[in-house]
Amino acid sequence: MPAPNRDGLKIVDVDVKDVRFPTSLGGHGSDAVHTDPDYSCAYVIITTESGKRGYGLTFTCGRGTEIIVFTIRSFKRFLLGKNASDIFADFAGFWRAITNESQMRWIGPEKGVTHLAVAAIVNSLWDLWARIENKPLWRLLSDMDPVELVSTIDFRYITDVITPEDAVELLRSKQAGKEERIEFLLENGYPCYTTQVGWLGYSDELVEELCDKYLKLGFTYFKVKVGRNFEDDYRRCSAVRRYIGDENVLMVDANQAWSVGQAIEWMKKLAPLKPMWIEEPTSPDDVLGHATISEALKPYGIGVATGEMCANRVLFKQFLQSGGMQYCQIDAARIGGVNEILAVYLMAEKLRVKVCPHAGGVGLCEMVQHLQFWDYASVSCTMEDRLIEYIDQQHEHFIDPCVVENAKYLAPQLPGYSTQFLQETLEKYTYPRGTEWEKMIKEGIFPQPDETEWANP
Amino acid sequence: MPAPNRDGLKIVDVDVKDVRFPTSLGGHGSDAVHTDPDYSCAYVIITTESGKRGYGLTFTCGRGTEIIVFTIRSFKRFLLGKNASDIFADFAGFWRAITNESQMRWIGPEKGVTHLAVAAIVNSLWDLWARIENKPLWRLLSDMDPVELVSTIDFRYITDVITPEDAVELLRSKQAGKEERIEFLLENGYPCYTTQVGWLGYSDELVEELCDKYLKLGFTYFKVKVGRNFEDDYRRCSAVRRYIGDENVLMVDANQAWSVGQAIEWMKKLAPLKPMWIEEPTSPDDVLGHATISEALKPYGIGVATGEMCANRVLFKQFLQSGGMQYCQIDAARIGGVNEILAVYLMAEKLRVKVCPHAGGVGLCEMVQHLQFWDYASVSCTMEDRLIEYIDQQHEHFIDPCVVENAKYLAPQLPGYSTQFLQETLEKYTYPRGTEWEKMIKEGIFPQPDETEWANP
Repeated sequence: MPAPNRDGLKIVDVDVKDVRFPTSLGGHGSDAVHTDPDYSCAYVIITTESGKRGYGLTFTCGRGTEIIVFTIRSFKRFLLGKNASDIFADFAGFWRAITNESQMRWIGPEKGVTHLAVAAIVNSLWDLWARIENKPLWRLLSDMDPVELVSTIDFRYITDVITPEDAVELLRSKQAGKEERIEFLLENGYPCYTTQVGWLGYSDELVEELCDKYLKLGFTYFKVKVGRNFEDDYRRCSAVRRYIGDENVLMVDANQAWSVGQAIEWMKKLAPLKPMWIEEPTSPDDVLGHATISEALKPYGIGVATGEMCANRVLFKQFLQSGGMQYCQIDAARIGGVNEILAVYLMAEKLRVKVCPHAGGVGLCEMVQHLQFWDYASVSCTMEDRLIEYIDQQHEHFIDPCVVENAKYLAPQLPGYSTQFLQETLEKYTYPRGTEWEKMIKEGIFPQPDETEWANP
Repeated sequence: MPAPNRDGLKIVDVDVKDVRFPTSLGGHGSDAVHTDPDYSCAYVIITTESGKRGYGLTFTCGRGTEIIVFTIRSFKRFLLGKNASDIFADFAGFWRAITNESQMRWIGPEKGVTHLAVAAIVNSLWDLWARIENKPLWRLLSDMDPVELVSTIDFRYITDVITPEDAVELLRSKQAGKEERIEFLLENGYPCYTTQVGWLGYSDELVEELCDKYLKLGFTYFKVKVGRNFEDDYRRCSAVRRYIGDENVLMVDANQAWSVGQAIEWMKKLAPLKPMWIEEPTSPDDVLGHATISEALKPYGIGVATGEMCANRVLFKQFLQSGGMQYCQIDAARIGGVNEILAVYLMAEKLRVKVCPHAGGVGLCEMVQHLQFWDYASVSCTMEDRLIEYIDQQHEHFIDPCVVENAKYLAPQLPGYSTQFLQETLEKYTYPRGTEWEKMIKEGIFPQPDETEWANP
């Protein structure tokens, strides 16, 4: 896919909104570390002269969204007045420029707030590109010539694992059968697992009810949150195992609750329940710790999964190199957008690690489906032991929500990256002046924020 | 040092300023990656009811400072109305709370913008504490009972290397001779090296002139920037080696310019000039890459130094565990302030790695001298192969600037952490409304910032 014609693609406006949903009220999404998330996002709308727009976001958990919004405003100067076609024609160059601006890189580099801000911007650019080509993003990626696709990636600091030449060769070797795989995806979708049965905040009755519900919906993989209290974990995991039977699969997720030693001890004691993976056993920065845990749990048949809070491709590279992850859980909005994620998929394939994307939150399911569809069409070309996470929350706010039927994501059809909000959602949930927030604040359900708690436009 | 009496220590105001110096005009501080830094900082002033104040900062490179300032404002709620004595009495608890707030940790955690903001806040609290005790910070730390000192540290994710009990035992084993070492520091100061001779932006004539100047000032360790062009590097490093002779020590610093393979090749070719260390050869996140480089350069007698952009104690832990750093360059303002730095010093001592702090920028020399003095008094208890970096810029703006004589930092004497600015400096260099900035903007030397480029108070 060469860059589109430049006509009308000058970027004339970049808008950014702080959108928050009051999910803490229901205890949805609670885990050992994130006890009261209000699922939120910083939402970017790029407008070109022609009126074509791109919509992108990065997921957040409530407080702090204002910092991402403020940072995205600082990055506007990388976009305003540029022609989007020129950005696409040297996308790796644009990516390097925005992630490594000579003064601003000090406050990153390539991690935390600045990288989340970059992700929202870069994701909106890919959405724009896919809309211009009139394709869902996964088709745009799958249709790209290997050389063109690889040209969007900044290989700095990862050439010890994969070079641009290696990447082109890898993609070329997978071209055969691509059209058949695309047909297969269109007909069959892509398998997913549910995280809905075992949030820490849920009662035992609710866990049973939800297992029953998701079994009936066709799910065969079930993930349960653990890490706050062992007895409680064992009881809930036993219950899930009992409800789903031995023929289905259990995974557990500690959300970084443990030290390395604790993780090993805790999981050895959960091993009789035969979890397929332990997710985020410890600090997301601890490559060597994950490698130690992986090694210790190998005899028990338990793999280690991590990635949703992995800061960038350099840390992913090391998790993949070290044997610290058996399941690579890329997140669509933490590392610097699609370009960097493509690099992680290519490294994972080269080092034979399975990618099972992290999803949930706001818009993550909508995004990762595109990436995993591309992976099946063009990279790993298999679904073996690969799954997308699925959580059915916040989909109703999108114009093109993901659709899961019989435990499979159906192929996205509309042009773009599926992250455009309904106008009504923006009117209701923009923080703190959306109508729902004004109401909840007025009713005292949430406090009135002061001027340090939101980025006044 | 138990927490001070609570009287008058309620925090009634937290002010934060964006202070920038136009260092890019002189090419000072230019390296292979940061080509035009305007040395800057986010500067915090905490005021208590009694009028006692604490002053703290985090260093930045110009653009982006406004993001740290904005983030510090978001963190004000952790301070306002609290009694500082209560914070000191459970300093590890405060540190955990501010770095792991249940919603905000998603936009970190413990890295990048949020961690730099925490550093400025935490550093201002230590400055306040030292002022209350009427001691320079290094004396406050050195006088603390091991149990009290260890109680300020959050050991989460590092207990596989050091536990609180290990840390107390380590510190207790070093108590003997402490008063003599403090006397020695007061009389002799602490050795340092200069980075002033070889910034990339400098001409050969300037390099020669500066070598001559620093030799006459008594320096015996000289660091040169490398990484942009090999021929240029070889010429400048050869010149420095020629001027300083074989009896003095050369170090080189690539500021993350290379891939792992490039770093090894480049340094093998510089090996005949006998550099003692290569600093920041590649990505600051690449633990395994640094370990590979260290291993490859060991036969050449070249060590690897890194740390100024190491994100947190978890990454430091791995650099120390893996053999990826032979010189641990803690930075006083990147990881989450004094508390987390203490943890790094203790891990380094446990794993027998030398700490040689990073300095320069704005206020870093002022801060790290306190830390390294404490290390000599209480932790490693040796100066062997240990040095503090010294760059003589921006000291004139501080009330208690560091003083270097005969290539040694003299012991700081005034109470606090030496980071209080002169009032005049704030009036001149607060961005963009300080008198010097107004003048430079008016004269067209710098552009007028728009509202996205500074955090309007």
